[in-house]
Amino acid sequence: MFEYLAKSCEGVLMKKNLYFYDEGDGKNKRLLGGKGAGLCTMTQLELPVPPGFVITTEVCKRYYEDGGKLPGGLMDEVGAAMRRLEELTDKGFGDPKKPLLVSIRSGSMLSMPGMMDTILNLGLNDETVEGLTKLTKNERFAKDAYRRFIQMFGKIVLGIDAKKFEDVFEKQKEKIGTKLDTDLKVEDMRKVVEQFKQIVKIETGKEFPSDPLKQLELAISAVFRSWNNKRAREYREYYKIPHDLGTAINVVLMVFGNMGPDSGTGVAFTRDPSTGAKGLYGEFLFNAQGEDVVAGIRTPLKISELEQKYPEIYKQLLDIADKLEHHYREMQDVEFTVEQGKLYMLQTRAGKRTAQAAVRIAVSMAEEGLIKKQEAVLRVEPGQAEQLLHKQIDPKAKVKVIAKGLNASPGAAVGKVVFDSDRAKELENAGKAVILVRPETNPDDVGGIIASVGVLTSRGGLTSHAAVVTRGLGKPAVVGCEGIKIDLEKRIFETNGTTVKEGDVITINGSTGEVIPGEAPLVEPKMSKELLKLLSWSDEFKRLQNWANADYPRDAKRARELGAQGIGLCRTEHMFFEQERLPLIRKAILGETEEERKEPLGKLLEIQKGDFKEILKVMDGLPVVIRLLDPPLHEFLPKYEGLLQEVIMRRMSGGRAEELKAAEDLLKRVEAMREANPMMGLRGCRLGITNPDINEMQVRAIFEAACELKREGKDPRPEIMIPLVGHVNELRTVREQLERVAREVMSKYGEVSYKFGTMIEVPRAALTADEIAEYAEFFSFGTNDLTQMTFAYSRDDAEGKFMFDYIRLGILQVDPFQTLDRRGVGKLMQIGVELGRKKRPDLEIGICGEHGGDPASIEFCHELGLNYVSCSPFRIPVARLAAAHAALKAGEAEKLRYL
Amino acid sequence: MFEYLAKSCEGVLMKKNLYFYDEGDGKNKRLLGGKGAGLCTMTQLELPVPPGFVITTEVCKRYYEDGGKLPGGLMDEVGAAMRRLEELTDKGFGDPKKPLLVSIRSGSMLSMPGMMDTILNLGLNDETVEGLTKLTKNERFAKDAYRRFIQMFGKIVLGIDAKKFEDVFEKQKEKIGTKLDTDLKVEDMRKVVEQFKQIVKIETGKEFPSDPLKQLELAISAVFRSWNNKRAREYREYYKIPHDLGTAINVVLMVFGNMGPDSGTGVAFTRDPSTGAKGLYGEFLFNAQGEDVVAGIRTPLKISELEQKYPEIYKQLLDIADKLEHHYREMQDVEFTVEQGKLYMLQTRAGKRTAQAAVRIAVSMAEEGLIKKQEAVLRVEPGQAEQLLHKQIDPKAKVKVIAKGLNASPGAAVGKVVFDSDRAKELENAGKAVILVRPETNPDDVGGIIASVGVLTSRGGLTSHAAVVTRGLGKPAVVGCEGIKIDLEKRIFETNGTTVKEGDVITINGSTGEVIPGEAPLVEPKMSKELLKLLSWSDEFKRLQNWANADYPRDAKRARELGAQGIGLCRTEHMFFEQERLPLIRKAILGETEEERKEPLGKLLEIQKGDFKEILKVMDGLPVVIRLLDPPLHEFLPKYEGLLQEVIMRRMSGGRAEELKAAEDLLKRVEAMREANPMMGLRGCRLGITNPDINEMQVRAIFEAACELKREGKDPRPEIMIPLVGHVNELRTVREQLERVAREVMSKYGEVSYKFGTMIEVPRAALTADEIAEYAEFFSFGTNDLTQMTFAYSRDDAEGKFMFDYIRLGILQVDPFQTLDRRGVGKLMQIGVELGRKKRPDLEIGICGEHGGDPASIEFCHELGLNYVSCSPFRIPVARLAAAHAALKAGEAEKLRYL
Repeated sequence: MFEYLAKSCEGVLMKKNLYFYDEGDGKNKRLLGGKGAGLCTMTQLELPVPPGFVITTEVCKRYYEDGGKLPGGLMDEVGAAMRRLEELTDKGFGDPKKPLLVSIRSGSMLSMPGMMDTILNLGLNDETVEGLTKLTKNERFAKDAYRRFIQMFGKIVLGIDAKKFEDVFEKQKEKIGTKLDTDLKVEDMRKVVEQFKQIVKIETGKEFPSDPLKQLELAISAVFRSWNNKRAREYREYYKIPHDLGTAINVVLMVFGNMGPDSGTGVAFTRDPSTGAKGLYGEFLFNAQGEDVVAGIRTPLKISELEQKYPEIYKQLLDIADKLEHHYREMQDVEFTVEQGKLYMLQTRAGKRTAQAAVRIAVSMAEEGLIKKQEAVLRVEPGQAEQLLHKQIDPKAKVKVIAKGLNASPGAAVGKVVFDSDRAKELENAGKAVILVRPETNPDDVGGIIASVGVLTSRGGLTSHAAVVTRGLGKPAVVGCEGIKIDLEKRIFETNGTTVKEGDVITINGSTGEVIPGEAPLVEPKMSKELLKLLSWSDEFKRLQNWANADYPRDAKRARELGAQGIGLCRTEHMFFEQERLPLIRKAILGETEEERKEPLGKLLEIQKGDFKEILKVMDGLPVVIRLLDPPLHEFLPKYEGLLQEVIMRRMSGGRAEELKAAEDLLKRVEAMREANPMMGLRGCRLGITNPDINEMQVRAIFEAACELKREGKDPRPEIMIPLVGHVNELRTVREQLERVAREVMSKYGEVSYKFGTMIEVPRAALTADEIAEYAEFFSFGTNDLTQMTFAYSRDDAEGKFMFDYIRLGILQVDPFQTLDRRGVGKLMQIGVELGRKKRPDLEIGICGEHGGDPASIEFCHELGLNYVSCSPFRIPVARLAAAHAALKAGEAEKLRYL
Repeated sequence: MFEYLAKSCEGVLMKKNLYFYDEGDGKNKRLLGGKGAGLCTMTQLELPVPPGFVITTEVCKRYYEDGGKLPGGLMDEVGAAMRRLEELTDKGFGDPKKPLLVSIRSGSMLSMPGMMDTILNLGLNDETVEGLTKLTKNERFAKDAYRRFIQMFGKIVLGIDAKKFEDVFEKQKEKIGTKLDTDLKVEDMRKVVEQFKQIVKIETGKEFPSDPLKQLELAISAVFRSWNNKRAREYREYYKIPHDLGTAINVVLMVFGNMGPDSGTGVAFTRDPSTGAKGLYGEFLFNAQGEDVVAGIRTPLKISELEQKYPEIYKQLLDIADKLEHHYREMQDVEFTVEQGKLYMLQTRAGKRTAQAAVRIAVSMAEEGLIKKQEAVLRVEPGQAEQLLHKQIDPKAKVKVIAKGLNASPGAAVGKVVFDSDRAKELENAGKAVILVRPETNPDDVGGIIASVGVLTSRGGLTSHAAVVTRGLGKPAVVGCEGIKIDLEKRIFETNGTTVKEGDVITINGSTGEVIPGEAPLVEPKMSKELLKLLSWSDEFKRLQNWANADYPRDAKRARELGAQGIGLCRTEHMFFEQERLPLIRKAILGETEEERKEPLGKLLEIQKGDFKEILKVMDGLPVVIRLLDPPLHEFLPKYEGLLQEVIMRRMSGGRAEELKAAEDLLKRVEAMREANPMMGLRGCRLGITNPDINEMQVRAIFEAACELKREGKDPRPEIMIPLVGHVNELRTVREQLERVAREVMSKYGEVSYKFGTMIEVPRAALTADEIAEYAEFFSFGTNDLTQMTFAYSRDDAEGKFMFDYIRLGILQVDPFQTLDRRGVGKLMQIGVELGRKKRPDLEIGICGEHGGDPASIEFCHELGLNYVSCSPFRIPVARLAAAHAALKAGEAEKLRYL
């Protein structure tokens, strides 16, 4: 991908190291970074953008290729660009009279919010700061800008501990008895500047660099360096962003939001990122620089307040939003600054949004005619649809709300309180659900947020770090919850009257901002009308059918309501575990003669017939794949270890002889049925060969149920699935035996339509699928077992014993039981599909492993040409959307192929 | 194969239904059957063959296609042929004066001794028998021939119970007080004939058919019918002979070995079928028909006695043997009859022989220049070589011999005595080794012989049924052991002073003919010089190398002596199970800190180093593949169930608290390590990732051992094998970690040559072999595990729970743990080889599963292009021969392909 893009750019663009905004290609985010490309586009749309230029990501790559050195000649080009910038702005870089100040902003192809560094006010030194004072007639402002610059430059470029600067600054505020920066007077600022310069001198052994071009060179290196800092690398690893993309750097004329009460800075979304409602949505801080908003330290005003104070600017923003949405055909997230009443756009990009907003925006935009229905479907990731199906607090439940903050990311979460990211990771590793509670979060907390089921902060707004990151991850969050007082040392937080300790369970409601002590009852969510519409569009484009795994009539009903087009897996043995049935199946297993087994099997026949009749009735007219008995029989018997204990204890305590005898007999029977590796033992179709009577009872029940429904005017479509086939002769033998039973039943009642087929869950079945297809009208990939055999991972053992280490060490990227392993298991599936269809072109092929509800796996199933994917009922909406994505993406790939 | 042959014959031969011996193509056994082709060849070599013709196998096929009817027009052709036969013999079919009598003999392409029917003396009726009397001037002879004909025809053609005839015949002998047929006078024979005719009339309701042409028609139908009798079908199934080959029928002028003291009949081998020594070897019965020899009822004379009585005939036989051997370039098994001093050859075919004889004959013939060395190698089946490696009774052991019979098939066997074939099968199914003891065996006993480890008969000679069948199967047999008196009713046998009951264990020595009560000590055999020569020739032609699986220096030594070219699998964990080591490995496993594990690991390091040094020294200059720790660690700990019992008992008996505590602690540790399916759990390379210190110790031991040997001037070639790899990242991770250890050791001692590689035993490894080959210098197919995963058969469970049923029901043809499953496991191997070599053309690939010693599997490994096969040391000779066979056969296939 990367190479392909690099090559395609080569001829056109690779010769230049930097582009002014009026010349850069706004579509080439790969080269110019997202921010640079956005500024180019906005400039070329004639929106108010401060002049500037962007140094390309190619330069960053060369920086790393050369072992962390700027390419030779780069600074000459930058110098020339600065001269052009001087001309455009009528200012001079380092000119004491009309000093040109610039910001240095990182910006890579893919958004990595807050992960890399930015430096403002660059170009200031002891001389230019005086020029700034004269120009602005505001020494306090100029000195404040200078101290900010020294502080930022000191930390980012010179690597000085930020705390040293903060301590000085806080001490100065204490000295004059205030908590607000704005209370500091010009003389305070002067002192701060002097002390900051002193810190630099002590820490680096050198004077603060005064040459603006030198400052610029150092800053460019530092920003490139920040591409590879630890948190940026972690972020990229989590989001699977390649490490070799590199970042671009924007060098832009400084505009000041902190130039007095007619200045300010803000961020805005063109639609509500939480609900998707149309209209400007955002925040504004008067007399502040941009970082103040994003950092979440001061709680900003809502953007609507800007309308009252600056109706013209608000109107201008609305126009810009409209222009941008029409240009990008996508909701935008913009940053802007007002400098003494004049609006400047500093950034535009596609806005992050909640899943709910994503759905609403996609559907609205399609209805507004901005995008096509296909695009609307593709704009909502299946993972987002999944979030909408997250549980919510039961609206009927009476819960005690102890605090309320901002509803930053919807959904409810229940977990143990932790107060730092390390503890969050620790407990998550131990399998606990945790909620991270922090005054505010910063980029170093990303790992902790990932480890948590939800986040609660006492400070920050809806665009604060915590809010942005949790929305991206689809985790509930409540932010800016000022009603809780966090004491990090005591590891507690207090609200009015309640104390919550680390480890205590709380519930947060990210949809309402409420904080609830203890575990609130959660319920399944309802689907919004927009989601229903999106799913109906999905159904128009998908080629895969969506079937459900359902063992009980109630599950089948729910599945059908959620859009299931069939039942892909009905596990008959689950029915056996129910209370009244277990004794019957035990008798049927332990009976030594056919006679002894006949009576319990007869009772089970009636019960199973009832179950099947219900399910077939619910799914009237749709296929229902019923799998015959699969697990080893000893699963239905008492556990060996328990029996062993009982026998020993009875022996030693000298109880009644007949009870001991019975226990010993049962122990012997269970012992004889024990297996070294039951997963690969006597189960599945092997049982049908060694113990045919249970299978026969099941098939009789299925056909009697179907036949009776047919008589009642229904349209039952049973499909009998024989599990664990590895050799065609197994299938042939079992099928022949069961077809006899089916024909016998139908000869009494009349014909029903039915199919016989098999699971493909043993590697050998996939490898010999042509032979097997001769006796199977359908295949259903049992990818849980197929993954077990292909990897030789016993799932029960792997998940507890080494899977975590494997993922931690990067041996596996994902758990193959979650997402299909394309290279191994997928290859077997491909072989199975090809061979099976070669023998029987109309073979019905599906998947009924858990992968049938996993979007990445569904995409693969589409590529393989399966007929359907089957998953748990509650995942059906996700799977429908994923199936549409797969079809639409494949369509695009198809188109690309023929370009 | 069959179709191919059929097509190639079509144009040339398919028009005719029968061929006279002077015109049939002696090479076309497919069409003429083995016997017919042999008679054609002998006729055309101008050897004394009675005139006759052969009805082709095509006719037999049409007989079955038409639902058991002779093709229309056939009998017209047969009639015409009989007229030509009349001309050739100057006799008339049904002519009362010069009656032409013929034998009707079956004979299919592949030998099925005694399985189908033969009818002698056909053409006799009340009139022609008188003519015969006149011609031979011997009424007794004529009547005897007539009663034999009625008896045979009655049983075979008319389906009358043979016992009815036998009873009459026995009664007649009793009447005159004799046990010998020859004591019966002419009047006795007349009476017998009359009574036999009566039996036919009673049983069939009709007179015995007197028209010779009708007799012939009925006989031809009956012989075709016998192709499909039960025992013939069973025989073909066992030997995998297609059921659609059909049999030919020979119609030959009768010659009589029972025409008085100057007549007789015999069988002879051109070399000793037991030892392979050159020279006529066989048996002769005076005044008898052929069936009397083969049936084993009368004990015949050695052929050498013929030399004394009929030196001319003996000389003639020697010449014929020489001619036949030069023509066929193969040891022949001939049947002949002497009629009043004149020799007639009745059959020739390749002779069955013991494995020992096969080797000696092949080697001698090559040395005599009769065949090439390649042919000699191909003439000995690997399975035969295996027989030569059967155990023998320890020559140093003092054994009590209670009886001695003929050494009919070499090797020693120990088993429980059974007295009938059903019981033999029953006990064999129950896993017992049995020896079948019978007065004599007949074709109905084939199943019982197959089920037994050896056979003992009290009657019959070296060419009796029991002798022939056991030699074919490679099972030890003692026949004609007249010293044992078998009482089938009491189910015992007695020798002079000893009574042996059914179920008692005996030992038989088929090489010496001895019978020994109880279990004699058995030892490995020595290889003959012929076998050594044959194996050295094999080594010239094979392309696969033969490596051995050896865990101990003593095994490695034996393997090298037997011709191993490397060690393909040295299982390091087997060393851990030895007494002094087990406590150390337990400490190393249970140690909770690195410190606690360090001390036992240090001790194990020294021990393993010693082992490796010995093995590497024994294999000096040859590769030694050492597999790192593979089994789950809990295999080295006490069993969970035992610990559980101990804890419960200690708790209840109230013993010492600290002992209970220790037991409980151990139980807890072992419980934590238990796995649901240990075969697919924490083992193999997964251990190297979660518990790296054991692996590191092992690699350190290997490299220290190799480095020290190098210093001593040796040439150690260790290859480190990482087991259970399923994902390239596992291999990469473990290899990197272990290469560090290897480099560390070598930096101290100096370099040694080594390789790192992996088992391919997980399906995913085969499917992604290209990725894996990047980090592996060699692959070794671990087909035991690969078979387990590909079939999802836990071997421990399958063999006991369903494998037997699967083979019995024909779901599996063979146990896939014995012979590689080409279609499933083999396909994975093929994928693995192709992908692996694509990435790394010089990849060394072998197999170390048990299949590495199985001839059919070795052939497949050759086809796959593996570099070596590795098996148990004692199977190395078999594997060397199998490797040569594979190469030579592939060469032939290669040639055919380019024809």
